[in-house]
Amino acid sequence: MSKATIRLADQFFRPRQDVLESSTLESSLKQCQDTGRLDAFLLREPGGDVPEPHVYWDSDVAKVMEGMAYAVKLNPESPMRARLDALVDRVVSAQQPDGYLNTHFTVVEKENRWRMLSWAHELYCAGHLIEAAVAHFEATGSRKFLDAMCRYADYIAQVFGRGDGQKRGYPGHEELELALAKLFRATGERKYLDLAKYFVDERGQEPHYFSQVEKTQSESGLAQLQCHKPVREQTEAVGHAVRAVYLYSGMADVASLTGDGELLAVCEKLFDNIVNKKMYITGGIGSTRHGEAFCNAYVLPNAEAYAESCASIGMIFFAHRMLKITGDRKYADVVERELYNGAISGLSLSGSEFFYVNPLEVGSSFQEGGHVQHVRQKWFGCSCCPTSYCRFIPQLQDFCFRAEENTLWVDIPAAADIRTDAYSASISGAYPYDGKIRMTVSSKAVMTLKVRIMGFTGGAFSARLNGEEFQPAVEKGYAVISRAFAEGDTLEWEFSMPPRMVFANPLVSADSGCAAVCRGPVVYAFETADNPGSIAGYSLRAYENNFRIVPADGLPDGTMAVECDGYVQDVSPDAPLYSWRPVSFKPVRLKGIPYALWQNRAESEMRVFLPLK
Amino acid sequence: MSKATIRLADQFFRPRQDVLESSTLESSLKQCQDTGRLDAFLLREPGGDVPEPHVYWDSDVAKVMEGMAYAVKLNPESPMRARLDALVDRVVSAQQPDGYLNTHFTVVEKENRWRMLSWAHELYCAGHLIEAAVAHFEATGSRKFLDAMCRYADYIAQVFGRGDGQKRGYPGHEELELALAKLFRATGERKYLDLAKYFVDERGQEPHYFSQVEKTQSESGLAQLQCHKPVREQTEAVGHAVRAVYLYSGMADVASLTGDGELLAVCEKLFDNIVNKKMYITGGIGSTRHGEAFCNAYVLPNAEAYAESCASIGMIFFAHRMLKITGDRKYADVVERELYNGAISGLSLSGSEFFYVNPLEVGSSFQEGGHVQHVRQKWFGCSCCPTSYCRFIPQLQDFCFRAEENTLWVDIPAAADIRTDAYSASISGAYPYDGKIRMTVSSKAVMTLKVRIMGFTGGAFSARLNGEEFQPAVEKGYAVISRAFAEGDTLEWEFSMPPRMVFANPLVSADSGCAAVCRGPVVYAFETADNPGSIAGYSLRAYENNFRIVPADGLPDGTMAVECDGYVQDVSPDAPLYSWRPVSFKPVRLKGIPYALWQNRAESEMRVFLPLK
Repeated sequence: MSKATIRLADQFFRPRQDVLESSTLESSLKQCQDTGRLDAFLLREPGGDVPEPHVYWDSDVAKVMEGMAYAVKLNPESPMRARLDALVDRVVSAQQPDGYLNTHFTVVEKENRWRMLSWAHELYCAGHLIEAAVAHFEATGSRKFLDAMCRYADYIAQVFGRGDGQKRGYPGHEELELALAKLFRATGERKYLDLAKYFVDERGQEPHYFSQVEKTQSESGLAQLQCHKPVREQTEAVGHAVRAVYLYSGMADVASLTGDGELLAVCEKLFDNIVNKKMYITGGIGSTRHGEAFCNAYVLPNAEAYAESCASIGMIFFAHRMLKITGDRKYADVVERELYNGAISGLSLSGSEFFYVNPLEVGSSFQEGGHVQHVRQKWFGCSCCPTSYCRFIPQLQDFCFRAEENTLWVDIPAAADIRTDAYSASISGAYPYDGKIRMTVSSKAVMTLKVRIMGFTGGAFSARLNGEEFQPAVEKGYAVISRAFAEGDTLEWEFSMPPRMVFANPLVSADSGCAAVCRGPVVYAFETADNPGSIAGYSLRAYENNFRIVPADGLPDGTMAVECDGYVQDVSPDAPLYSWRPVSFKPVRLKGIPYALWQNRAESEMRVFLPLK
Repeated sequence: MSKATIRLADQFFRPRQDVLESSTLESSLKQCQDTGRLDAFLLREPGGDVPEPHVYWDSDVAKVMEGMAYAVKLNPESPMRARLDALVDRVVSAQQPDGYLNTHFTVVEKENRWRMLSWAHELYCAGHLIEAAVAHFEATGSRKFLDAMCRYADYIAQVFGRGDGQKRGYPGHEELELALAKLFRATGERKYLDLAKYFVDERGQEPHYFSQVEKTQSESGLAQLQCHKPVREQTEAVGHAVRAVYLYSGMADVASLTGDGELLAVCEKLFDNIVNKKMYITGGIGSTRHGEAFCNAYVLPNAEAYAESCASIGMIFFAHRMLKITGDRKYADVVERELYNGAISGLSLSGSEFFYVNPLEVGSSFQEGGHVQHVRQKWFGCSCCPTSYCRFIPQLQDFCFRAEENTLWVDIPAAADIRTDAYSASISGAYPYDGKIRMTVSSKAVMTLKVRIMGFTGGAFSARLNGEEFQPAVEKGYAVISRAFAEGDTLEWEFSMPPRMVFANPLVSADSGCAAVCRGPVVYAFETADNPGSIAGYSLRAYENNFRIVPADGLPDGTMAVECDGYVQDVSPDAPLYSWRPVSFKPVRLKGIPYALWQNRAESEMRVFLPLK
């Protein structure tokens, strides 16, 4: 895939990439500079004006660097290139003679290296540095950062393992597993895959390392870190959601790279558990702020939803790996649910403000606190989410298309131009706001197109080749069109995307008596910007409704809102808490906008699920 | 009131008192014995078979003793009398020469006396011992325990205060304030009231004692203990709910006993804040398990409700004090809501099993953990709730009637016999299951009857004196009948109590699209014992319904269930989490039983609020 050039040209993703360098990367770089994260790599003794590097600081810098590398890949002329190389120099200069590289444990707690794995993010930071190094290598061809990180990984492989004198530990916050798989792919060095496999398989073995050896975690707290039992015995997604999906991504990598069917089956089971029991309609995962964690099945409160931005992005990493391994559309359906909803909602249209959490309801009684905010913020003390967007946004095209040698997978038919050595094609249309897609092949090519037939279509679609309707074969949810294309061949396909009321499984009691409105992959949110007063006063007309698609005001060109019938009742804090007085409802037209774009115009209250009336 | 004898004879409360001695008190005494709580007062050095007394153990024993004293008051021939006196001997024997009495800080952390007020329950335990001593004195006339506790209170008054060398601390867990007011009432010693007033007024003053002096709490954690600001500046109920209502009870006592109108106004404001913004329909308060605390206004999740039993009982203490001070019916309405619902629901009909928390919904995804259990338990590590029932149940009659010298307040018209030196009367009827009440005066007496016209009646009632309809005056929600009664005079009154659907204020988003069913003061719960399958499948027919009152199966004689029209849909964990398929509903008759009695027949799922269809 490395030789493919994919340029998004759609109205949903492209505006995010247009402000990536000028806003998202710039603002995070400035924050990293202002907070001391960049200077931490100078390894100055803390004190006076020199702050103590926090245990997770290195990861923030690494994630921004990874994003810069992808930006350079998208735009080789970018001035980001020189700044990235300078940053690489600085980071590598902090590496110790033995290969170790961690600012906190080099200048603050020198004596505690490798002694607080359970919570000190040491191996997590190593993973992000490795991911950044691989991205830098792939974007620039320079091996400097990559070689340094290989030395670091080699050192880690000496410290950890099952041999004499080695520590049988593993990351408290998973991430290194998937990074080592990337390092293996970039270098071809099997030892990195072996180390990833060790970390995956050692996790949760008895005696429990964090409770018995480190004595930093109670037995009952191990599930929070997914190490309560060996990963192959895990069937339910539990604990800290970001940790979980990073682990599962690493497991999927190891399963795929080692041909380990048993481990892949575990990944499938965990994926299904999330998607069928523990995921918001927006794709949000990890429903409670307490531990930023998964709850029991069906516990999906709306206002109290945590649904961390990083967790949705991590879920894409996991689902996309599963998609690549299995070719099964169901994984792309989840990638898409995240991309158009819960994984994007954390980022402002301006590109420089962020939600850490993504609730499905923000009303007058919304409980703020810590990372839980009702408007997007410029930065956070623990700023994983902003830096996740730095590296996520420049990868959007890779989650839409997979351009393999003679095969093009259209996982998500966003408007785009795609060029490889073997073929060129452009996709036009207004997806996700319209179901008509047109693809023009601009070079003669023998190739196979694999076009995803989204789950929401129920399998119904029509296709035309150069204007002639035809019926392609469908495999694992993908229409397959193998053909010697001529220059100018056009392929059109179309899905029906009526707005629909969507109901949660009745076991989701938070959504009892309520419905959401969706159209195609887009979940709609009802904001007070469009529906004035208190959002608590609005109901949706059940069960038939009159939907209308209209241009959304104040949002990027092409964004479509949905209008529908509803009711409004008086809302007053002076009214009694409970009342048997017949409620008086007035008919009203409601307007919803894409959930991903809420809180971008005015400070609004918002709901996704509205009560039915 | 001390000379009144009130015997409940109703079908709701009386069965609880019938098992008080044999079950509730016996089981708690046995637990206190088995866990070492009783032997802790022997002050043996911990180690080997001798467990360390926990910081809250003394309070459990004191609360059981207080309950035993009330049981003796109800039944002077009770064998509890001798056991109580023996316990008093043991407890008093643990008193130190300086008056101090606390098992934990006498044998475990000797060096930390008065140094961990913020969390170590030291003054809280003192309060419960004082309450027990006052109850023992009033039940038996013995001054032994009372005098010992006066010595303890005198010592506390030396340690705490604004004088030189005194600590300007206050209880981390409020309770002592109201206990000192009781001690003042029992002894007439003004110094105890002064000390109560000191603790009330010092609370929340700067510098903050727990953060600045003890350094045991962060500034942001002070609201959890209601000491973030002076109590007179507090307008919103925040933090740990039990602590809060104990504090407000003590504040009401101080306000009343010192004639402090400003402090009373604060109590009124805090009461209204709870009742209008933060109370479940069942009377449950403190909606989150995280800190057992109040949430923001209108945050009242059903399955996640904490609604600790002790908090509802404490809310009765607070509301009943406000009722006695102001004579305003609205306070009795809250006492009643608690008594017939959330304050009783924690106790099994057997009398020996307890809920710590009282959710309004328990379904297949209910999240257990810690004190949060879906079936009642025999005991808890921190066992405040069982011991709260020990002292609460024998006081039920006092929350229904206030027999003053020539005035009888009928706050709640439960069937009962009431005798005082001045008058005797018996009340019959099936309240709360029927709205017809009959009172027979069995002695000639010049007296004033004050009969509460419940809030749920909207003021509508009819009254008959010896069969003749008449229209009594109504003051502050009470019908007032002053008269020279002849022996055999009968007064009848009647309220209409149709079953009704009750809607939460739309700002309570947890109840969006849902309604509860109530009748008179009783909130109904729908259990799978009566409505088979998954409780998540049931909906209530909106907005008109066909209610029918029928005898409840398997519950105490006279208990009435409600039947109504609803719908049932298929519930399957194999069904997708979100679906736009039209939902298929089948009509069904639903049956609800009083919420207070749920989970007494079979292990059931349960909901109070059902979605409307």
